[in-house]
Amino acid sequence: MIPRALKFEEGALWLLDQRRLPAKVLWIRCSDALEVARAIQSLVVRGAPAIGVAAAYGMALAAQSGDIRTVRTSAAALAAARPTAVNLHWAVARMKSRAEELAERGADLAAGLLELALSIHSEDEEMCRAIGTHGLTLLGARPRILTHCNAGALATGGMGTALAPAYLAHAEGRDVRVFACEARPVMQGSRLTTWELSQAGVPVTLLVDAAAAFLLSRREVDSVWVGADRIAANGDVANKIGTHGLACAAARYDIPFYVAAPRSTFDPQTPTGDDIPIEFRLAAELAERFIEPVSASDIDVWTPAFDVTPQSLITAYVTDRGVLAGGRGQSA
Amino acid sequence: MIPRALKFEEGALWLLDQRRLPAKVLWIRCSDALEVARAIQSLVVRGAPAIGVAAAYGMALAAQSGDIRTVRTSAAALAAARPTAVNLHWAVARMKSRAEELAERGADLAAGLLELALSIHSEDEEMCRAIGTHGLTLLGARPRILTHCNAGALATGGMGTALAPAYLAHAEGRDVRVFACEARPVMQGSRLTTWELSQAGVPVTLLVDAAAAFLLSRREVDSVWVGADRIAANGDVANKIGTHGLACAAARYDIPFYVAAPRSTFDPQTPTGDDIPIEFRLAAELAERFIEPVSASDIDVWTPAFDVTPQSLITAYVTDRGVLAGGRGQSA
Repeated sequence: MIPRALKFEEGALWLLDQRRLPAKVLWIRCSDALEVARAIQSLVVRGAPAIGVAAAYGMALAAQSGDIRTVRTSAAALAAARPTAVNLHWAVARMKSRAEELAERGADLAAGLLELALSIHSEDEEMCRAIGTHGLTLLGARPRILTHCNAGALATGGMGTALAPAYLAHAEGRDVRVFACEARPVMQGSRLTTWELSQAGVPVTLLVDAAAAFLLSRREVDSVWVGADRIAANGDVANKIGTHGLACAAARYDIPFYVAAPRSTFDPQTPTGDDIPIEFRLAAELAERFIEPVSASDIDVWTPAFDVTPQSLITAYVTDRGVLAGGRGQSA
Repeated sequence: MIPRALKFEEGALWLLDQRRLPAKVLWIRCSDALEVARAIQSLVVRGAPAIGVAAAYGMALAAQSGDIRTVRTSAAALAAARPTAVNLHWAVARMKSRAEELAERGADLAAGLLELALSIHSEDEEMCRAIGTHGLTLLGARPRILTHCNAGALATGGMGTALAPAYLAHAEGRDVRVFACEARPVMQGSRLTTWELSQAGVPVTLLVDAAAAFLLSRREVDSVWVGADRIAANGDVANKIGTHGLACAAARYDIPFYVAAPRSTFDPQTPTGDDIPIEFRLAAELAERFIEPVSASDIDVWTPAFDVTPQSLITAYVTDRGVLAGGRGQSA
């Protein structure tokens, strides 16, 4: 069965702790907006759409106070939790605007915001299914898909973005296999993508990030699928560090490179990829979780969490509204 | 000071245990050829030139028996220790041929083979210095070098291949910085390259393999330098998995891509990269050394230790005999 990243139950938001997977399946209970903000910041929940849904529930929890000022402070805290994902800001802004409107006419803040959060969540599920349906038209009878990081069920409120076509192909009985890059340093590919595909019974092969170009050169895969954290107005894509390199190799070997994302990921306010703020992570992430030190001490590190892939390297954007041609111009 | 990978002292070969770096600086004593073969197989010593030198000393240790049959059996064991590196087979064949010749005329096997091993070692030191001198002509006043895995002092009997120009530039007082990719899964970049450059006082910045393409796209480096385990007759290069992807990205952004290797790495018997046997490593390497499991259990893995980079992506080969143009045709 395809696992879920989050659920709203017993008046609280429950998040599957993605830092502990695959070793432990632990659910964390968040009963106020600050707990949700901290969970987003510390990667308990990650993936742009899932962050957006979690933040919406965070706003609903803030509204349980019935106080619009609490809702406003919570909006700021939630929006500041991660810098790159546009969905987060989009969800928080939408919830805040509803809160202001409800407050103005003295309506029930708590009920109104919970209703909107639930509806943002089910829109997200619908969005995933729509991306899957559009993406399925681009897959053959025996799809061999390369993916990076985790743009699956654990990254969304539904069945994922980049993995949705694979899930639907598997459900249809097609012989599908997903090749998953590790996604160092946080290992979302090894830890999350292999876990969720295994849970759902989809065959998966794990490889180190550095092996992907060689895999593409040997034509072991027939398409590359990634998610997106933000898509600039010109089509440049910010996504987990490593995406850019996959796109270079896929272009070199003429293998389609698809970006799967909801329309909310497209950010018309950001002209190009150069205008997207890139989050840098802590140096410790390169060394931690290993039994012994893995690098000399006191060296510099370069730790972008995301990179920007120019639109010229992208075959198509697969969105919930359909397939849009990328700069490589081979779109369906 | 630039560290060393091996030394012959007190009638034995001493190998710096590269599996334990940077946490521990441990020297392992090998007193016979089988111990050397096991050390090569288990990555105590790695890097094509260093393996060649270690194997030569292994043959010299076998010759201490004075028995040509022991030398022949040892040659087979040493040659079988790693499948990809051509230097290993070249060094073993050279030692064996000298042994047969000495045996035929009843000369002192032990003294003759030790002399040849010492001379192979000092040829290797000379070779590194010559590569460094030729490579230095391709560097500017403020070189920003991206490298992969470890093709430094720890990979050779001298100051390294791909890192030799950086060491000489540093010695000359140029403002040099090396960007080192981790080289998952065995982390030779994090563990060895950052350590040896730090020991020598050369500034180094560590990054995950997946960040390299983005670094190149941002023009933070002005050349890419890698070593080689084997170079086919047409110029295709087998080297640590990840090399191929760096070459794709460097080509896309028109940044020179240099392969530094001794002439012994060029293998005229192998027509193209497709003919080079690629070693696959154990699946456990993707998970071991972590405190918690990093992937779902019972999944498939794709674990090539090396990849092949087509000659069309290579700017130049920097050898001990000079600089040879690659297929990208921008050579000096």
